[in-house]
Amino acid sequence: MTSAQNPAPSFGVHSEVGQLRRVLVCEPSLAHHRLTPSNSHELLFDDVLWVARAREDHRAFVAHLMAEGVEVCELHDVLAATLAEPGARDWVLDRKVTPDDVGLLLVDEVRGFLEGLDDRTLAEHLIGGLAVHDLPESAWTLSLDRATPAGAPTSYVMPPLPNMLYTRDTTTWVGEALTLNPLYWPARRNETLLMKAVYEFHPQFMQASRNIVWGDPERDWGPATVEGGDVLVLGGGVVVIGMSERTSQQAITQVAARLFDTGQAERVIVAGMPRMRAAMHLDTILTFADRDVVTVYRSIVDDIRPFTLRPGLQNGLHVTAESEPLLDVIARAIGTDQLRVVDTGGDAYSTERQQWDSANNVVALRPGEVFAYDRNTVTNDLLTQAGITVHTIAGAELGRGRGGGHCMTGPLLRDPVS
Amino acid sequence: MTSAQNPAPSFGVHSEVGQLRRVLVCEPSLAHHRLTPSNSHELLFDDVLWVARAREDHRAFVAHLMAEGVEVCELHDVLAATLAEPGARDWVLDRKVTPDDVGLLLVDEVRGFLEGLDDRTLAEHLIGGLAVHDLPESAWTLSLDRATPAGAPTSYVMPPLPNMLYTRDTTTWVGEALTLNPLYWPARRNETLLMKAVYEFHPQFMQASRNIVWGDPERDWGPATVEGGDVLVLGGGVVVIGMSERTSQQAITQVAARLFDTGQAERVIVAGMPRMRAAMHLDTILTFADRDVVTVYRSIVDDIRPFTLRPGLQNGLHVTAESEPLLDVIARAIGTDQLRVVDTGGDAYSTERQQWDSANNVVALRPGEVFAYDRNTVTNDLLTQAGITVHTIAGAELGRGRGGGHCMTGPLLRDPVS
Amino acid sequence: MTSAQNPAPSFGVHSEVGQLRRVLVCEPSLAHHRLTPSNSHELLFDDVLWVARAREDHRAFVAHLMAEGVEVCELHDVLAATLAEPGARDWVLDRKVTPDDVGLLLVDEVRGFLEGLDDRTLAEHLIGGLAVHDLPESAWTLSLDRATPAGAPTSYVMPPLPNMLYTRDTTTWVGEALTLNPLYWPARRNETLLMKAVYEFHPQFMQASRNIVWGDPERDWGPATVEGGDVLVLGGGVVVIGMSERTSQQAITQVAARLFDTGQAERVIVAGMPRMRAAMHLDTILTFADRDVVTVYRSIVDDIRPFTLRPGLQNGLHVTAESEPLLDVIARAIGTDQLRVVDTGGDAYSTERQQWDSANNVVALRPGEVFAYDRNTVTNDLLTQAGITVHTIAGAELGRGRGGGHCMTGPLLRDPVS
Amino acid sequence: MTSAQNPAPSFGVHSEVGQLRRVLVCEPSLAHHRLTPSNSHELLFDDVLWVARAREDHRAFVAHLMAEGVEVCELHDVLAATLAEPGARDWVLDRKVTPDDVGLLLVDEVRGFLEGLDDRTLAEHLIGGLAVHDLPESAWTLSLDRATPAGAPTSYVMPPLPNMLYTRDTTTWVGEALTLNPLYWPARRNETLLMKAVYEFHPQFMQASRNIVWGDPERDWGPATVEGGDVLVLGGGVVVIGMSERTSQQAITQVAARLFDTGQAERVIVAGMPRMRAAMHLDTILTFADRDVVTVYRSIVDDIRPFTLRPGLQNGLHVTAESEPLLDVIARAIGTDQLRVVDTGGDAYSTERQQWDSANNVVALRPGEVFAYDRNTVTNDLLTQAGITVHTIAGAELGRGRGGGHCMTGPLLRDPVS
Repeated sequence: MTSAQNPAPSFGVHSEVGQLRRVLVCEPSLAHHRLTPSNSHELLFDDVLWVARAREDHRAFVAHLMAEGVEVCELHDVLAATLAEPGARDWVLDRKVTPDDVGLLLVDEVRGFLEGLDDRTLAEHLIGGLAVHDLPESAWTLSLDRATPAGAPTSYVMPPLPNMLYTRDTTTWVGEALTLNPLYWPARRNETLLMKAVYEFHPQFMQASRNIVWGDPERDWGPATVEGGDVLVLGGGVVVIGMSERTSQQAITQVAARLFDTGQAERVIVAGMPRMRAAMHLDTILTFADRDVVTVYRSIVDDIRPFTLRPGLQNGLHVTAESEPLLDVIARAIGTDQLRVVDTGGDAYSTERQQWDSANNVVALRPGEVFAYDRNTVTNDLLTQAGITVHTIAGAELGRGRGGGHCMTGPLLRDPVS
Repeated sequence: MTSAQNPAPSFGVHSEVGQLRRVLVCEPSLAHHRLTPSNSHELLFDDVLWVARAREDHRAFVAHLMAEGVEVCELHDVLAATLAEPGARDWVLDRKVTPDDVGLLLVDEVRGFLEGLDDRTLAEHLIGGLAVHDLPESAWTLSLDRATPAGAPTSYVMPPLPNMLYTRDTTTWVGEALTLNPLYWPARRNETLLMKAVYEFHPQFMQASRNIVWGDPERDWGPATVEGGDVLVLGGGVVVIGMSERTSQQAITQVAARLFDTGQAERVIVAGMPRMRAAMHLDTILTFADRDVVTVYRSIVDDIRPFTLRPGLQNGLHVTAESEPLLDVIARAIGTDQLRVVDTGGDAYSTERQQWDSANNVVALRPGEVFAYDRNTVTNDLLTQAGITVHTIAGAELGRGRGGGHCMTGPLLRDPVS
Repeated sequence: MTSAQNPAPSFGVHSEVGQLRRVLVCEPSLAHHRLTPSNSHELLFDDVLWVARAREDHRAFVAHLMAEGVEVCELHDVLAATLAEPGARDWVLDRKVTPDDVGLLLVDEVRGFLEGLDDRTLAEHLIGGLAVHDLPESAWTLSLDRATPAGAPTSYVMPPLPNMLYTRDTTTWVGEALTLNPLYWPARRNETLLMKAVYEFHPQFMQASRNIVWGDPERDWGPATVEGGDVLVLGGGVVVIGMSERTSQQAITQVAARLFDTGQAERVIVAGMPRMRAAMHLDTILTFADRDVVTVYRSIVDDIRPFTLRPGLQNGLHVTAESEPLLDVIARAIGTDQLRVVDTGGDAYSTERQQWDSANNVVALRPGEVFAYDRNTVTNDLLTQAGITVHTIAGAELGRGRGGGHCMTGPLLRDPVS
Repeated sequence: MTSAQNPAPSFGVHSEVGQLRRVLVCEPSLAHHRLTPSNSHELLFDDVLWVARAREDHRAFVAHLMAEGVEVCELHDVLAATLAEPGARDWVLDRKVTPDDVGLLLVDEVRGFLEGLDDRTLAEHLIGGLAVHDLPESAWTLSLDRATPAGAPTSYVMPPLPNMLYTRDTTTWVGEALTLNPLYWPARRNETLLMKAVYEFHPQFMQASRNIVWGDPERDWGPATVEGGDVLVLGGGVVVIGMSERTSQQAITQVAARLFDTGQAERVIVAGMPRMRAAMHLDTILTFADRDVVTVYRSIVDDIRPFTLRPGLQNGLHVTAESEPLLDVIARAIGTDQLRVVDTGGDAYSTERQQWDSANNVVALRPGEVFAYDRNTVTNDLLTQAGITVHTIAGAELGRGRGGGHCMTGPLLRDPVS
């Protein structure tokens, strides 16, 4: 991944809290404009967003990251630049505009329409979806839409992908290894193909395609799904993966075997989580704020059952059921006696409310410095009291998809911690 | 209702858009702190709030109203002042702390605890509820709470009333007549008793208790429920009442008969609405911005079936099924050829999203001047283009219970329009 | 309650398993014909019924009870006979046909219509509800129903009461004491008034009205609700009451105090249950099949937290939090070392399915002899192996409201066990 | 598909009502035993079944079909016979026991376990699923199941397929053409692979594999899904396909093009249906009972928007939006002036309830003779009055997945109507 000319590695995530150097984000945009009260739950959002304000809040977050020296790659920009590369546009459209995706009657119309868009607008529709009514009215009948001639049709030929906002989930760097994740919900499946295009064609990303160790959006993975929000890279060869509604043992065992094969991990701690929306990913109930400081939603974390995977003889794996609680297993794995734990703050009401509002979903800028939503003031105060510097993100709009700073950042390059 | 010293009437609502002079509001507080992801739907909220921010936003709204010359009565203040009056505290506690409400084991404990609170704190608990764990630990067993000795109990002996935020619903002035509304959802039933206390004991409100023409929270009204959000007072003897999930013909016919009896109305237009959360009250899909300007969510309003009630021989009523659409019936009733209609703005997505975010729930300060949530920018622009002055309210937190400026203001005194 | 001519008491329930002598049931009828896929959940049924078949199955159950010597009172018959008594019809209609219940426009129409019905037909409508379209078409506009002139209106002026099928819930005999229960769900509230009419006017029931110790459907009990399915009368002065979604400590403490006052109980064991549909009443997870034999759904029963109420100084009560599991507390209370427990049968799938299908909701005919649904073959086999004689009821239709033989029988007279 | 030795065609569906000669069904079995209250909705059933009774009812239906001269292929039998063929077992296990499906740790265990089963038992698990606890306890840890050592794990390594009961959906014969349908819900996706195995290996089915014109379960079809319940083969080159929640234009256009290509259809009428559970497939609201007799649920059918596809230049298709109602379009297409329509019977309650209970989901044995559930007595009477002979199926258990006789029969050979 490195070359003589460019000795510094451009990709690689070696810890949860080491200096963050480069990160992928995705600005709220057309996809969020498509969210309405009637479709938001299907699209995994709890409420609709004020899109313009969400975009402002996101831009402020990005500016803050940049001011702290982090290189920020915004996905619309990245995708537009990707599409400008020779062959990229065809590669994407060949895979997005098929009879399966848009129907036999619309294939030519849609391809023609998208061919006519500039790179930036095409990128916006790839993320934001293409509704039948975005097409010229002459094409509406071809969609067999139930809408009467008077009413505009409302069905999609390319679905909107509002959850790309949570870039962490779609691709994951573990050390020098990259996974292109098969995502759980149909509403998110199309995200990964766009990321594959980026790693295939974008000049700054294509070098890293050789680091892909698992996952390919061009085939069906069945129940083997994993989302990056369930993956915590502790460093020192230790990775924690939440086994959740969205991340299955079918995927975890494969990812673990590939990480062992490629020498990117020596141990994967599997955190068996209960199935509930409040705990959709491991990082919604447990993230790191410093080498040995975690913020944790106790009532769920204490109920997790941990296993350890190591290289072994069972198709490359060996499994142990751990008898200690997860936090103790983690502490031992990173070589400390005990983690310093910052609980979700406040009384029973505050605690439940703040976890819901992503209080435990912080992302570290560097050891002891994190980004967190402004609204979780009680937990943020506890972090501060624990010696953590808390930078805030406006969460009124961004948080409505139940993801915080950790979810919204897909780290591309992060230092190890010493 | 008037006195020699103060010849101006202190109460009375004579239009939807005449100069607003005096209004009842209720600040977000303890009741909203009780909202959590697991109870919010039962308490009729779609999401939890950042309470401190919601309070700030509400205070800014109140300050804006006052700056425009409106006298604002805040319910916690009003209730605290009420409790300070002789007899008031006993009157309330006799009705709130009964074996039916708190159980036989807790009656004395709870009464004792509440007796010990100052007026302001008591007012806060009357609105914000009393949880078992608010009581001394010695009382916990008396609640038979399932919580183990280790865990704090979470059940209530007085339920929180977060929907009091929407003061418009609980009591309604139509001309010089006041109704104490029986509310539909059990979660809101207790609101009206507190308002009765206010009108019984508060020095500035008690004079108006003689104006009560219907409703008494001390008896069960069965299916005869009405909420103020369904009542639009057009003036000139015309009232529109939405027949909705929450407001039944059983109540509408009684209210109409009382308004006719007391000479406060000559005609009640009943707007038969479909049952859906997006259209919980008539004022969520139709409000007035000027004498002849309405903002309207077409796709529901066009589906309404109107009836007219007038004084008559059938228990005081006469009913006519109208054959024209509601907006035409209203136009004719207020003596204009046609209403100027400002639709919810934008494309199909924006329209649905903005109605949900209370875009059509504006409240007039005076003719042609309204308060609206900041987030509904497209509809607000259309209002501006129609010549309406739009003052904005920050809606990120306050809007999560699906109510806007119209819902949050219970008008006490509003001028007629000429 | 007794007379010289008839020295044997006609009412009184002295155990769960002593010889059943007289029982109240309610045949599926018009109320169940009103159940449709769109309203069944609101009416607390999980699916619609084939009403004719449900009636046949119910009649077979009744015939079986009678063949075993039990006197069966069917509620439609009982109510029709009640209405034939002087004053009864007016008493009922005065309370059912009020402006609150039917609206001011319909009061005279509805009263007139119901006056014109014979006793049997009136009884059928009191239980089965009165839809606007049951009235002459001339009355439809008076209902302000949204239906166009072409379509028949579908709203109700008296709601159907399909849950009267579960007669056990509405009124409860504990020893010689009778309670008229305030029920939890609005959909069931109207049931109790009909039972009050029966106890006020029916020649065979009116003698027992003096035994009423608690409850009156003519006033609002707020959160103080109790349903008979939560009450198990063990005899010897011991009563177990489930504290569930539907039965609150507010009611339990009042009922307990009244039972102590009237000498009908010396101890009430409160079983604090989790809130879930599968465990809506205590008798859905625990019933008695013999003096010391219970059938039990372990995974919920083991999670119950028991308290004991005894006569005392706190408004007549004394409370103890029990430290032992419920089954041990019960065993001790009835003077045995240990209960013989018949678990819900089969593997994990069968167990969950059979509990759902009322496998643990058996009703004893006499010690060691019970009625149970035919479909729960595995649990029924276990009961048989435990020495219990199992009579079966066809459950395919009757069970769809999640109630079995125990729910469908309101015991009026049952012997103590020696 | 025919040969000199066997001149009679063994497969081919040439109408909806011509003599039914050969049919595929699937008996309730292990898959339905896996249904519980907590998983039934995920598995698309509204309630749990009494499996033994459901099996009896299904066997009675099969016996009735056979008594009427229909050859019945039962899927467990067919699949067991398939597995006995050389290569078949490996073909299936290679595709079902992959790291994606069972996880890397379990691949060898599961393969070993399944290899050890006889053909019949293996067939039962392929349809009924394989739970982790079906494996030897030594394998449990390999599943990383959260269950404690004490409790049995409950997760699956092969999911149960209870909807295979509805064999019509999985594969469809249109004339001499066969489609292997990509099904909409993940819960059903695995059904089609089993049918491919049957058509690849079973001696009586493998000849027909050359007739497959569309669909292959070994690749992902994205949104291009079609279920057989949406396909009505009218004969004379006319096919009606419901465009529903489960059958998309993406699939319909492809299927139509293939039918045109192979000369099996000249016209496809697309019935654009609203999205609702009551109308999950076209055959839940419209089936044929005779050449020109349909039974129809009006309130939804009247709302359908029809289109016609014919061979044309747009990727092989030409589309017309029809201006007439569906029933008129169908009548014209089959060369009759008007269809004789048997509506769902009874009043508003009965109609809604009977449609829900599959009253309009009849399957013709021959012209004028149908099978229907016993419970829909009112609609069945109307069919009889229209001159149709109605054979009944016991529906109390079988109907709980919302499918009737039409859904439960996958026709393999049916005559044309003259």
